[in-house]
Amino acid sequence: MTPARPVYFISDHTGITAEIIGKSLLSQFPGEAFAPVSLPFVDTLEKANHAAQQVRDDWALANIKPLVFSTLTDPAARAALDACGALVMDIYGHFLSMLAGEIGYPPQPLRGRSHGMSDANAYRTRIDAVNFALAADDGLGPEKYQRADLILVGVSRSGKTPTSLYMAMQYGLCVANYPLTPESFDASIGSPPGLPKSLQPYRAKLRGLTLEPERLAQIRSERRPNSPYAALETCRQEVKQAELLMRSEGIPIVDSSHRSVEEISALIKHSLTGER
Amino acid sequence: MTPARPVYFISDHTGITAEIIGKSLLSQFPGEAFAPVSLPFVDTLEKANHAAQQVRDDWALANIKPLVFSTLTDPAARAALDACGALVMDIYGHFLSMLAGEIGYPPQPLRGRSHGMSDANAYRTRIDAVNFALAADDGLGPEKYQRADLILVGVSRSGKTPTSLYMAMQYGLCVANYPLTPESFDASIGSPPGLPKSLQPYRAKLRGLTLEPERLAQIRSERRPNSPYAALETCRQEVKQAELLMRSEGIPIVDSSHRSVEEISALIKHSLTGER
Repeated sequence: MTPARPVYFISDHTGITAEIIGKSLLSQFPGEAFAPVSLPFVDTLEKANHAAQQVRDDWALANIKPLVFSTLTDPAARAALDACGALVMDIYGHFLSMLAGEIGYPPQPLRGRSHGMSDANAYRTRIDAVNFALAADDGLGPEKYQRADLILVGVSRSGKTPTSLYMAMQYGLCVANYPLTPESFDASIGSPPGLPKSLQPYRAKLRGLTLEPERLAQIRSERRPNSPYAALETCRQEVKQAELLMRSEGIPIVDSSHRSVEEISALIKHSLTGER
Repeated sequence: MTPARPVYFISDHTGITAEIIGKSLLSQFPGEAFAPVSLPFVDTLEKANHAAQQVRDDWALANIKPLVFSTLTDPAARAALDACGALVMDIYGHFLSMLAGEIGYPPQPLRGRSHGMSDANAYRTRIDAVNFALAADDGLGPEKYQRADLILVGVSRSGKTPTSLYMAMQYGLCVANYPLTPESFDASIGSPPGLPKSLQPYRAKLRGLTLEPERLAQIRSERRPNSPYAALETCRQEVKQAELLMRSEGIPIVDSSHRSVEEISALIKHSLTGER
C-alpha cells in the first residue's frame, strides 16, 4: 500500500482560501491517498521557517514528497517556506505576479483581507443575514418577509434551513423559509387551492425546494425512525402536493435530492441575478 | 476617474472556489476598482465560448482588459475561454499540471467534486452539525452536550451563534452554545461562584467568547436601541463578570471584537487540533 502523501495548507491567516483551493485541486486525483495538515496563522518569518521544517520532517517520515498549498503574503515568508523543497503551490506568488503585471504596480501584502473584517459593511451584511435567517426560519417572523431577498418553500426536511443559512453566510442574502405542511395542503381543500396567505404578497421572492420521496423518507427516518412522518407513502403524498402547489403558482423549483447546500445556493443565486 | 475593471469568476460548477481565490487575490490591490461578474455552471463547450464572448464584449465596452479567474476542468472548455484574450488566471490549468507532474499521471477532470456531494459522509457530517448547532443554540438541548465537539460560552451578542453555525458548515464540528446572562452571575452570589450546572461535566469542551464593552453596546444597540440591555454600563458589568468566570474556570477565551466569524472559527479549530 502506498503511504498517504502529506498535504499542507499553509496560510498567514485563517487558511480558508488555501484549504478550499487545495482540496478542490486534490479532488481531481480521486485515486490518491492524502494526509492533510492545516497550518493557519503562520504570520512571522520564524513560523514560516518552522513550517518548512515540519514539512521536511514529515517528508523524511512518510518517505513521499509532500504537497504544500500556500497563501502566504509576505515575500520573505514565502521564500522561507519554498526552501522546504517539497512541491510548493504558492498561490499568491504565481497569480499576484500575473496581476501586478497587468495592473501596473505590485500588490500590497496585507494579510487577512479576504476572510477578515476589512470590508466592515459586507461583513455586517452577512452577519445580519444570518440573524435574519434564524429569525425567519420555518415560518417564523412573516412580518419580516418584506425585508427578505428570498423565501424558500418546501416540505419538512427538503433542505430549506441549511440553504437559508448558507446563502446568508456566503452571499449576505436575507433568506426566510416557510414549510409546506400537510396542514397547509388540507387547508386548501374546499377553498380554492393556493399559497398560504402570508406568502401571497411575496410571490416573486418564492423559490421551491423539492426532492425525491425516497431520499426524503431516508432523511426523515434518521430523525424519527418508523414514524408516519418518515413513511415513504407520506413523503410521496407531501412531495406530490407540494410540487403541484409550487407549479400551479409558477414558483421556480430546485431539486435538492443530489445537490449540496452549496450547489443549491449557487443555483438559486445564479437564477436571481440573471447572470448567464 | 478610471473605470472599474471587469472581473469574471468562471466555473463549471458553483463558482465558490473561483470566487474565493479571486477575491482573495484582488484584496491585495485595495486601491483598484473592480466590477465582478460570476458565471457559474459553464459546463459545456458552447457555454465556455459564450463566456469568452461576454468577456470580449465587456472589454470593448469598459475599454480596460478584464481579469478572469477560472476553475474550468475540461481542457477544451479552458482553451475556449483562454481565447478571449483577457488576463485569464486558469487555476486548474496551472496547478494541476504541477500536481500531475509530481503524482505521475494526469488529473481526472470531473467537475463538482469540491462543493458537491461526492464525499457523501463528509457532507452529511456538515449538515448534521448545522442541525446540531440549531438544536443546541443559546442554551437549548443541554442533553446534547455529550455529543458536542465544543460548547461556546459568552454574554448575549458575543458572536456565539454565527460562530457555531460557521464551524458546523465549514468544519463539520458539532458546536453548542450557552449564554452567560446576568441571572447566571447572580445565581452564584451566596453560593460558590462557578459554572452553570449543565456545563460542569463538559469543562474541556468549553471555549469563551468575549468582546470590548463598547463594541458589545454598539451591537446590542442595533437590536434594542436605548435599552438597559444595550447600555454601556450593563455591557461593562456583564463582560467583566463573564471574563472573571471564564478565567477562574480556565476556559480559553477568544476576543471577537475585531474578528470575523471565519477568524474566530479558525482560531478555535486551530487550538483544538493543536496543530502548530
